[in-house]
Amino acid sequence: MIEHNHGNLLIIGGAEDKQNECTILKHFYQEAGGRDSRICVITAASNTAGQAGKVYEDLFRRFGCTDLEILNIYTRNDGNSQVMVDKIFRSNGIFFTGGDQLRITAMLGGTALGKALQHLYERKVIIAGTSAGASVMSDNMIIGGQGDTPGEDIIRMAPGLGLIRGVIVDQHFAQRGRIGRLLTAVALNPYVLGIGIDEDTAVHVRADGKLRVIGRGTALIVDASNVTVSNVDELFTGRTLTLAPVKVHVLSRGYLFDIVERVSYQDSTF
Amino acid sequence: MIEHNHGNLLIIGGAEDKQNECTILKHFYQEAGGRDSRICVITAASNTAGQAGKVYEDLFRRFGCTDLEILNIYTRNDGNSQVMVDKIFRSNGIFFTGGDQLRITAMLGGTALGKALQHLYERKVIIAGTSAGASVMSDNMIIGGQGDTPGEDIIRMAPGLGLIRGVIVDQHFAQRGRIGRLLTAVALNPYVLGIGIDEDTAVHVRADGKLRVIGRGTALIVDASNVTVSNVDELFTGRTLTLAPVKVHVLSRGYLFDIVERVSYQDSTF
Repeated sequence: MIEHNHGNLLIIGGAEDKQNECTILKHFYQEAGGRDSRICVITAASNTAGQAGKVYEDLFRRFGCTDLEILNIYTRNDGNSQVMVDKIFRSNGIFFTGGDQLRITAMLGGTALGKALQHLYERKVIIAGTSAGASVMSDNMIIGGQGDTPGEDIIRMAPGLGLIRGVIVDQHFAQRGRIGRLLTAVALNPYVLGIGIDEDTAVHVRADGKLRVIGRGTALIVDASNVTVSNVDELFTGRTLTLAPVKVHVLSRGYLFDIVERVSYQDSTF
Repeated sequence: MIEHNHGNLLIIGGAEDKQNECTILKHFYQEAGGRDSRICVITAASNTAGQAGKVYEDLFRRFGCTDLEILNIYTRNDGNSQVMVDKIFRSNGIFFTGGDQLRITAMLGGTALGKALQHLYERKVIIAGTSAGASVMSDNMIIGGQGDTPGEDIIRMAPGLGLIRGVIVDQHFAQRGRIGRLLTAVALNPYVLGIGIDEDTAVHVRADGKLRVIGRGTALIVDASNVTVSNVDELFTGRTLTLAPVKVHVLSRGYLFDIVERVSYQDSTF
């Protein structure tokens, strides 16, 4: 069973709509308080931080946000900057842009800003991340491995920010054909729940342990906890993966997944 | 529960190795009797039938086959040709090349040759098919639909040759990211077991209802028979698929799947 540790996360599979209805980004804005929101955008993942920040600044201001900070983090010193920590502590919505997940963890891991995020998570401030910003949410994250057939190209993993525990997130999921690498990731330790999120799709994980899907595509939940057949011990000798039976939940908007009970159902509030 | 109706099928996910160890094609050759084999290659799927036939003729002759016929089928008249029917009835191994699955069913469906195949299937003559030749094996086959997110681009289906019932096969599976369309296919009727086969990978379905994986990649078995949450009734109004929980078996060489009991295990003879 997943240990659930309270928080309010919006995990976005990348390429969320920024032109039309902006369902996902507006959901974040509303959860952060709407007109009362104080939003921090963290661009640490991007090597063109200024540009990435500008896109989201324009969007959130267009929605009506008047209190917005862009935190461009270029070094670990920035991650320890008291100015930045003060800014993040007064925010009620934090948004991680996309890019490279290792840039986020390398620059924030163990810094004052990293610790501040943990505090805000425990205080249930909404924390959102798209693409690389989605991958860093959990304690383990996938950083590479593109093999289409599970096991062929062993995935590479690294420690994430550790906000939500016992899950592993993959993004751009259907678009980049990543089912193989997510299956491999959960095979390594079937305790971990795999969450594959399509582009323009998000899962909102609430403090009650319920995960709600919003957006255009699908979230695929991979639960390997009842696996009886596995050859994962042979994977690193070049074998192709065997893993069965795996329970998969294919969920689109309007459906919920209970992380503790590991069951899906229709969202009656939808 | 799947009704199992006896036969001996080698269903190949396409692009099987023809250069090196030729594991899959040699398996077919041995199952057809090795040096005693009398092989018919049916090129109906291909619009360059002569070429497709030559490739397999050269290969099987190289393995040691001395009795080999290439059946190039261009019209339904060919499918009713007594000469062809006589040839296929004396064979002990039949091989369908790749191409377009609709060419096979349109030219063979309901012909004398189509009926002969059913007789040979009941007599447990090994029948192999690669790519399009794999898709036609079952009673329902997928002929199109490339949406990466399940439901986005509704799949198109057509009646197959109907040798094995209650399953639906997809090929080039991991390579073309087809998990979404296989999930959609089984969602339409969860009675049907989905079998997604990677390139250079095959499942050998034997008369005892056991499916054995051979080759380099993975066969993914999708069992939706215990689904409790589904929105398949809304799919044709443009909704994205919801389907949960789905039982998935990721199987590589050396593993078996029991189609009747729907369980996986290691092949003790491997």
